[in-house]
Amino acid sequence: MTKWYQTQGEYSDIVLSSRIRLARNIKNIPFNNKLTSEQRKQINKSVKQALANINLGDNKLKFIDMSSLSDFERYELVEKHSISIEFAKNPKDRMLVLSEDLGISIMVNEEDHIRIQVLNSGLELNKAYEICNMLDDVINEVLPYAYDEKLGYLTSCPSNLGTGLRASVMLHLPGLESTGLISRLSSAVSKLGLTIRGTYGEGSKVLGSVYQLSNQITLGITEKSAIENLQNVVMQVIESEKRAQEMLAKDKTALEDKVYRSLGTLKYARVMSSKELVENISNVRLGVCMGIIKDVPINILNELTMTTGTAGICAMENKELSPAQRDLIRAKTVREKLNG
Amino acid sequence: MTKWYQTQGEYSDIVLSSRIRLARNIKNIPFNNKLTSEQRKQINKSVKQALANINLGDNKLKFIDMSSLSDFERYELVEKHSISIEFAKNPKDRMLVLSEDLGISIMVNEEDHIRIQVLNSGLELNKAYEICNMLDDVINEVLPYAYDEKLGYLTSCPSNLGTGLRASVMLHLPGLESTGLISRLSSAVSKLGLTIRGTYGEGSKVLGSVYQLSNQITLGITEKSAIENLQNVVMQVIESEKRAQEMLAKDKTALEDKVYRSLGTLKYARVMSSKELVENISNVRLGVCMGIIKDVPINILNELTMTTGTAGICAMENKELSPAQRDLIRAKTVREKLNG
Repeated sequence: MTKWYQTQGEYSDIVLSSRIRLARNIKNIPFNNKLTSEQRKQINKSVKQALANINLGDNKLKFIDMSSLSDFERYELVEKHSISIEFAKNPKDRMLVLSEDLGISIMVNEEDHIRIQVLNSGLELNKAYEICNMLDDVINEVLPYAYDEKLGYLTSCPSNLGTGLRASVMLHLPGLESTGLISRLSSAVSKLGLTIRGTYGEGSKVLGSVYQLSNQITLGITEKSAIENLQNVVMQVIESEKRAQEMLAKDKTALEDKVYRSLGTLKYARVMSSKELVENISNVRLGVCMGIIKDVPINILNELTMTTGTAGICAMENKELSPAQRDLIRAKTVREKLNG
Repeated sequence: MTKWYQTQGEYSDIVLSSRIRLARNIKNIPFNNKLTSEQRKQINKSVKQALANINLGDNKLKFIDMSSLSDFERYELVEKHSISIEFAKNPKDRMLVLSEDLGISIMVNEEDHIRIQVLNSGLELNKAYEICNMLDDVINEVLPYAYDEKLGYLTSCPSNLGTGLRASVMLHLPGLESTGLISRLSSAVSKLGLTIRGTYGEGSKVLGSVYQLSNQITLGITEKSAIENLQNVVMQVIESEKRAQEMLAKDKTALEDKVYRSLGTLKYARVMSSKELVENISNVRLGVCMGIIKDVPINILNELTMTTGTAGICAMENKELSPAQRDLIRAKTVREKLNG
């Protein structure tokens, strides 16, 4: 079955993905950190039962005992944004509900009893929310949630209290980054209850110009208005990015040279680190976005980003690999994908 | 008509070209630096007459008044090794006899009255000498040379006295260079009356690993034995280079990565300096020589090297161009040639 990241959505040239996540806990059961192993196993069982009769068409759900997975299988799920790193680190008594297209993932016994997450390609927050909401209702019908009339959904961490909703989008912002406008954007969105941060790399250097924009406020607001707020800001960021890219286009030759050299490197290199891949994919994506490169589909770039991380490469070969072995397979994978 | 550098000769993977040059002066006429403009013009006329009835098949000779050429036309001939830089600098009263395939060039009124040169692709010293010798005889029949029974041919500079012959080959030696064996080779060949030096770049850094190996001795030796001596040493250098390349092949992955990245850059870059071109062509040539790259013919690499210098690019557009304009056209030329 086609994975979510192999498809394209709205504004896919700038928006890599949209994600909605709901944090939920079952009524009259203590939060996870107070539970015994037995109690956690019972929650896994109950969630599985609650979802037993759900109909998602071809997109079947799998119920995965996290401790049955190898290290690289768990971290591959992190790299594909299906689970949190915290969930991968401690697999004991944890269950993952995962759809065939990897777009739906429900972490059971993460920080909260239940974390429902839906991922989509492009700017598709409402579509993701719809599915999330449906799953939320199905589970809630069998397992009543811990809910307070005044506070809303009760969550293990107070930062999620209320809607328990985190909505986020992954954005490719090379224009805003290289024109230095990104820092201004950062302070502007924080005033609107949002936060923006780099997704790859450490410290000030953001690898591949990929940023995550997400809501911070969960109290005193409805789920729908939180999503609407984020959606509106994203639309403005897209506009700003387009304007910034027009500024870059003033030195058309240098820009074309940069994006095509990256394409040449991706198509020809025999050894490629993860860092170099992310940087070259970023340049090629910019080239596609600006209409310079016409024969590389955006979804191939998304797929390469999602599948060629450290664990993703090991998963391809189904074994642990040294960094040198990974760099070799990564380069080969990229070449084969881009050369058709 | 196909140019000499568009063809391939013996050992073309390592030997770029072979060159024979004869320095000759006409009997009873002072050396060039003592001549009037009138006398020089008379020499031009005499050489033209001497060659009027020569039959070289389709490879017709053109008689070019050097002062009729633009700056970039003259320096294009230098870049293609048809004439010396000294000949290009002062075009007044000088004539060039040039064959259609650019393989034969006779500089009239250079340092000596007549300099006959034949260039071939690959290791083809004997073939070049044969043609040189034939041209030498044809001219000598009409214009008796200054010749001394004891000293041989008399030349303007004593370093050419005797045979007046300079034989040289251009070699691509990335293996000997990167294993550090090139300096040992340099002292070894000097004991055999030969000299080796880098052809591009300044000081110790030789661009593109291209070296010229040539004879130094012209006195007390026949033309044929000078050529034979050079030919023998070249064969040994080729063997050493092959062994050095086998050493490089021990880190096959790094080598493949380097040569393919260069191919990718040549095929995709939109801006390329002359220096970068020479370096990338060198890597690709190494890849072809070692059987890593199979779909790039050596003669295309030779042609790109010969035609994309500063003056060559201007000649393509038939006008003076800025460095930025040249880098753009150079990249385009390379792309088109390599992408078929």
